[in-house]
Amino acid sequence: MSTTRKRRICFPITSRAYYGRSQLLIRKLHHHPGIDLELMLGGSILLDKYSRHVADDIKEGGFTISASLFNVIEGGNHVAMAKTACLTALEVTNTLYTADPDVVVVCGDRFEQLAIAMAAAYLNKTIAHIEGGDLTGSIDESVRHAITKLAHIHFVTNDDAKRRVLTMGENPAYVFNTGSLDVERASCVDADITTEELSGYGVGHDVDVTTPFLTVIQHPVTTESSNRQHLETTFRALATFDLPIVWFWPNPDAGTGEMAETLRHFREHHEAATERMRFITNVPADQFIALLKRTACVVGNSSAGIKECSFLGTPVVDVGGRQQGRLSAENVIRTGYDVDGVRAAVKQQLAHGRYAPSHLYFKPNASQSMVDVLTSVELYTQKRFHEVP
Amino acid sequence: MSTTRKRRICFPITSRAYYGRSQLLIRKLHHHPGIDLELMLGGSILLDKYSRHVADDIKEGGFTISASLFNVIEGGNHVAMAKTACLTALEVTNTLYTADPDVVVVCGDRFEQLAIAMAAAYLNKTIAHIEGGDLTGSIDESVRHAITKLAHIHFVTNDDAKRRVLTMGENPAYVFNTGSLDVERASCVDADITTEELSGYGVGHDVDVTTPFLTVIQHPVTTESSNRQHLETTFRALATFDLPIVWFWPNPDAGTGEMAETLRHFREHHEAATERMRFITNVPADQFIALLKRTACVVGNSSAGIKECSFLGTPVVDVGGRQQGRLSAENVIRTGYDVDGVRAAVKQQLAHGRYAPSHLYFKPNASQSMVDVLTSVELYTQKRFHEVP
Amino acid sequence: MSTTRKRRICFPITSRAYYGRSQLLIRKLHHHPGIDLELMLGGSILLDKYSRHVADDIKEGGFTISASLFNVIEGGNHVAMAKTACLTALEVTNTLYTADPDVVVVCGDRFEQLAIAMAAAYLNKTIAHIEGGDLTGSIDESVRHAITKLAHIHFVTNDDAKRRVLTMGENPAYVFNTGSLDVERASCVDADITTEELSGYGVGHDVDVTTPFLTVIQHPVTTESSNRQHLETTFRALATFDLPIVWFWPNPDAGTGEMAETLRHFREHHEAATERMRFITNVPADQFIALLKRTACVVGNSSAGIKECSFLGTPVVDVGGRQQGRLSAENVIRTGYDVDGVRAAVKQQLAHGRYAPSHLYFKPNASQSMVDVLTSVELYTQKRFHEVP
Amino acid sequence: MSTTRKRRICFPITSRAYYGRSQLLIRKLHHHPGIDLELMLGGSILLDKYSRHVADDIKEGGFTISASLFNVIEGGNHVAMAKTACLTALEVTNTLYTADPDVVVVCGDRFEQLAIAMAAAYLNKTIAHIEGGDLTGSIDESVRHAITKLAHIHFVTNDDAKRRVLTMGENPAYVFNTGSLDVERASCVDADITTEELSGYGVGHDVDVTTPFLTVIQHPVTTESSNRQHLETTFRALATFDLPIVWFWPNPDAGTGEMAETLRHFREHHEAATERMRFITNVPADQFIALLKRTACVVGNSSAGIKECSFLGTPVVDVGGRQQGRLSAENVIRTGYDVDGVRAAVKQQLAHGRYAPSHLYFKPNASQSMVDVLTSVELYTQKRFHEVP
Repeated sequence: MSTTRKRRICFPITSRAYYGRSQLLIRKLHHHPGIDLELMLGGSILLDKYSRHVADDIKEGGFTISASLFNVIEGGNHVAMAKTACLTALEVTNTLYTADPDVVVVCGDRFEQLAIAMAAAYLNKTIAHIEGGDLTGSIDESVRHAITKLAHIHFVTNDDAKRRVLTMGENPAYVFNTGSLDVERASCVDADITTEELSGYGVGHDVDVTTPFLTVIQHPVTTESSNRQHLETTFRALATFDLPIVWFWPNPDAGTGEMAETLRHFREHHEAATERMRFITNVPADQFIALLKRTACVVGNSSAGIKECSFLGTPVVDVGGRQQGRLSAENVIRTGYDVDGVRAAVKQQLAHGRYAPSHLYFKPNASQSMVDVLTSVELYTQKRFHEVP
Repeated sequence: MSTTRKRRICFPITSRAYYGRSQLLIRKLHHHPGIDLELMLGGSILLDKYSRHVADDIKEGGFTISASLFNVIEGGNHVAMAKTACLTALEVTNTLYTADPDVVVVCGDRFEQLAIAMAAAYLNKTIAHIEGGDLTGSIDESVRHAITKLAHIHFVTNDDAKRRVLTMGENPAYVFNTGSLDVERASCVDADITTEELSGYGVGHDVDVTTPFLTVIQHPVTTESSNRQHLETTFRALATFDLPIVWFWPNPDAGTGEMAETLRHFREHHEAATERMRFITNVPADQFIALLKRTACVVGNSSAGIKECSFLGTPVVDVGGRQQGRLSAENVIRTGYDVDGVRAAVKQQLAHGRYAPSHLYFKPNASQSMVDVLTSVELYTQKRFHEVP
Repeated sequence: MSTTRKRRICFPITSRAYYGRSQLLIRKLHHHPGIDLELMLGGSILLDKYSRHVADDIKEGGFTISASLFNVIEGGNHVAMAKTACLTALEVTNTLYTADPDVVVVCGDRFEQLAIAMAAAYLNKTIAHIEGGDLTGSIDESVRHAITKLAHIHFVTNDDAKRRVLTMGENPAYVFNTGSLDVERASCVDADITTEELSGYGVGHDVDVTTPFLTVIQHPVTTESSNRQHLETTFRALATFDLPIVWFWPNPDAGTGEMAETLRHFREHHEAATERMRFITNVPADQFIALLKRTACVVGNSSAGIKECSFLGTPVVDVGGRQQGRLSAENVIRTGYDVDGVRAAVKQQLAHGRYAPSHLYFKPNASQSMVDVLTSVELYTQKRFHEVP
Repeated sequence: MSTTRKRRICFPITSRAYYGRSQLLIRKLHHHPGIDLELMLGGSILLDKYSRHVADDIKEGGFTISASLFNVIEGGNHVAMAKTACLTALEVTNTLYTADPDVVVVCGDRFEQLAIAMAAAYLNKTIAHIEGGDLTGSIDESVRHAITKLAHIHFVTNDDAKRRVLTMGENPAYVFNTGSLDVERASCVDADITTEELSGYGVGHDVDVTTPFLTVIQHPVTTESSNRQHLETTFRALATFDLPIVWFWPNPDAGTGEMAETLRHFREHHEAATERMRFITNVPADQFIALLKRTACVVGNSSAGIKECSFLGTPVVDVGGRQQGRLSAENVIRTGYDVDGVRAAVKQQLAHGRYAPSHLYFKPNASQSMVDVLTSVELYTQKRFHEVP
């Protein structure tokens, strides 16, 4: 198909993590002569306390920002999550109506992305979805597949996911295994992080990045009610190691309120144990990768443990149900929410050390592959269930 | 499983059609000793001009109404549809948070039902979905399957749909082919409708129900931009028949504005042709069935043509893409948007006359089967993709 | 004060009537070299059925439209009115945040204008209010004065209003009696309307504008519960005159639903009486003035009867409480909601004929006076109650 | 007037401060046989981190809670404030529509209370406003008077305010000087607070309440852009005193984000100066009064300094524009935002010591007076401007 006018692409970004992983794609779209790119900013990316660096970076990029939407409702619980999604969709509708894009790009499995996909679908836009078909736990599992059923173009990151998207009735001509943007990005980073730089982020004690240290990233699991206890389990398991810890605050999903409070409680009431810990909300994306390269072991339930770390060869202890069912490389040991289990798994990983890079989620040029599809594929809006023969 | 406390079920009703088809189920749930039922009213069902009868009926039923939400945004276009969905979800979140049900029942494929399902999922509720797995056109096709991927309990209406829901990764233990509520209801109605009663609804000329007449129900197809022309096609095709016509106003979906205007234009500017026509927004559910039984042929794109009429044996000419791909019995002739095609199909149906009842969508006691499941099945919230072997 | 950069002025327009009356001002602001003007469209002005002409006119004007917001919630009742206002304010907040104007211009006493003023005040914008200090009935009375207490610059239309705004504690340096925009506009119109042109609007029978006819404009009074009966009173009073009638549909305020239904009922069930009537939603602003010039008497509760007609000398029968307390010229006879009262008043006006022009609300160049203030006055945001000595 | 059915009163509570000051009134309304009281909770009172104690207290009170609305939008800036107000009004509309109260009680001058008043007015409810007619700075000044112009029953707290409410055109028959609820409450408290109890709240160092200490309560002034610097001014002025300080976190108004960050910055980077400080979000209402009784001087811009402290005789240094123009007793010294000014004023107050109680805002039985009015006054909805002779 030859396109005579530029394709207008709208890219809503609702968290700093999304921006980090999408950076390569966004820049390529921005510079492509056949594309008019508009970013929409919403959610946590606009809240100073999390994302000042990211917002600055976006401004410097020279992108067109079609809207900056403050729509995170306080509460850190399920009702706040649901209402944040609804308000996001309401406001996105106005912005999409004005911007009138040909394609809306939706990413992953976060709750507000489904809301955006719904609004885009009702506005009769073509939806491209990045990272469909993966399995996880939490509400993310439902969100990801529901987005698949609203989307028209699918960029999956592995063959397993591709098979699953096809099974769900999507048209094979529109399902592309491009590999993961996160992993492509991780593969491109050669930045490093120093102890001094790390001490510039967050609060707590200094962590020397030249000697072994642990990194904890444990987010709430929205479909579970014991997020506080699960975090305590991790805390108690890791307190027995004589290693410094870089501890990331949880994502602002339902359950984040009590988890953040738990962390604050640790800091106030377990001074001895937290003397080796630094608590951080965010480091810039490149330095985050550098940190993953340097850490002795990542503990928690972040997708970075499954994806970026598979390529980087970083040992990972994946705790609990959030990444349940997700395809993982040999760098990941899974464990339940029990102190002994977490402790044993960390010990095993410390004994093993780094792994060889896995290409499970990696293809070179993932972002370029997506740009190629987005500029050339024929767009459509009326979906049809594609029966698997 | 034995339940010790009553299960609380929340049933959002957002259109008069939904209430009509769900009536048997709602009444059985209402009277079941193990169930606490709460209705939530929203959308068009609260707008006087459409649904006064229904609202009265609901009040008389003695049901608990946990909320009456005015959330239809005017415009009759895509942006109004999207914003109506978002506003509905926002308000439903508040109501579900207060009502705290165990199960939320979501129906079919209408745009606001996906918004409700999303809100319920984020509140970590178990979602029961009625009528998953069917194929249609319009945005409904996307909506229906996206709801499936958010829902935990599936009541499908035919074996074809069951197969499709399983293909999409749903757990077979939670997929139940109960048959269609609409068709069960149609099978129970023995009411009739007289010419006098019919003349009490809508505007225009009297239609004698004792002699052959046509019924038109043509809704907007939200993914198409030519709804006005498509309606004109039907109008021009039917104007050549010397038969009275009962013409229903379109649903308040995106595109309804221009369709309603087109109908008004017909009335003002084609007086001769509309002299045999009556334009109606709504007749009570029982009389609607009676009308389907009496009409010589249904023309348009209503699901009633596919479902209720299959059991009633009413000849149907299904026009265009709205019911595309949907399983249909032999009472349905499909045609595109062209005057000659519609005319020929109607002629053929008039020549054929009524059909034998089909059981494609029919099982006796559909509503009771659903009640049995809803009272006894073990509830869960964390979904897992069920790989088809 | 000398301004070095252009002042950015945001002008939200939420109804066709507002656009009509503000046209002169908007055009002058648009062409002023020291002003960047942005229009925001919302409310009924975007709904095709009311305002297609106006929207076209706006587009042709070459104005910058910063947002088109669909935010009218269906229902025509109090809850729909309240929610429309809230949704408007929510969306306006986003738009004002992006547009970042120096001044927001708010008009009159309509419910959504207070919501806009509230949003603008919370965003710390300077608010200019047109037409403060007048008295009316309905919720408008509360709305108008509440806006005054949020606004920083006041353009009042008469000395009585000026005195009242000062009494309420506003700073005399910022209260300007510029006369009424509506009346300035009426004074500039030399367009005429023909019978053929009039017959191009609305539905019903032709009204010959060259012979005496009545014009009815009766809107709902939101603080009263008997809008239906009040409309019937007017209908019954006027049905006894042997004169054609141009009858305008009511504004979409709370109560409009039942009034519109009442009008539809008249049309269907009082064919004889309505044989002389034409029912119209809208005529372009210039032709509306022409109509007021030609009509023998305006009946109802429109502010046009009080303001435009005072200058045009058109006899007016003002019915009920909507304009209660409002300063009026001798062209207005006030009457309660009773058939005999209305009938007697109309008779008296028909006997009297046209009045001499009043300058009660008129100053030449009202719009230019406002432009002068808006370009030169020193802007401020922190209000202080100005105690009257 | 004799009432035959109970009056239904709806009392929206949107902050812990409001609950504190309204407690006496709420309890009396709750126990009155002629009143049906419903509380609506929204805003910061539902957010765990601020108000757990209050929420528990409300539950124990046995009140009917008609809604719990999560509607605080994160950002701590103007756009978040505006959107929080709009969302509050939207949700309150639904709740008021369902609850259908006779009277809605609105308090003071906070931004969300105007939004609630607007929604209530549009629903044609009678609005009672507590504490109209006072002067302040910030957006509160506009909010308070705008509410007055929407309200039907006015409970003012001093004669000055009464005069001003009448000047604004309110009906004298509906303006009642009942004295202040806050001050009545302060007059009833005989609780004390110990050093141990105080150390149970907030973070930082212990403050010995038996020796002289300062209390700082400095909220953002929404109409000013230098809240960060203004807070630093206070910090620098007080750092020179050798006294412990109880420092309250700012209210969640626009500007709170940067103020909270500033406080966090003090804590991390001025360890020496903050070694004598305790940072607190909230103490229960009774203990707050006890704290005011014990403190050597209150510094900042809280209304408690003007009102409660006038009766308690606590020395107050009122900084900047937030309480500008407000009637104050001799216990208050006002100063601008300069280090020397604040320091000198605090010195002067420390030298002076406690003041004799003022009755400027005090009348015994304020809450009972309000109950008497709310149960007996004739209710109305159509407002009329009452011209002062």
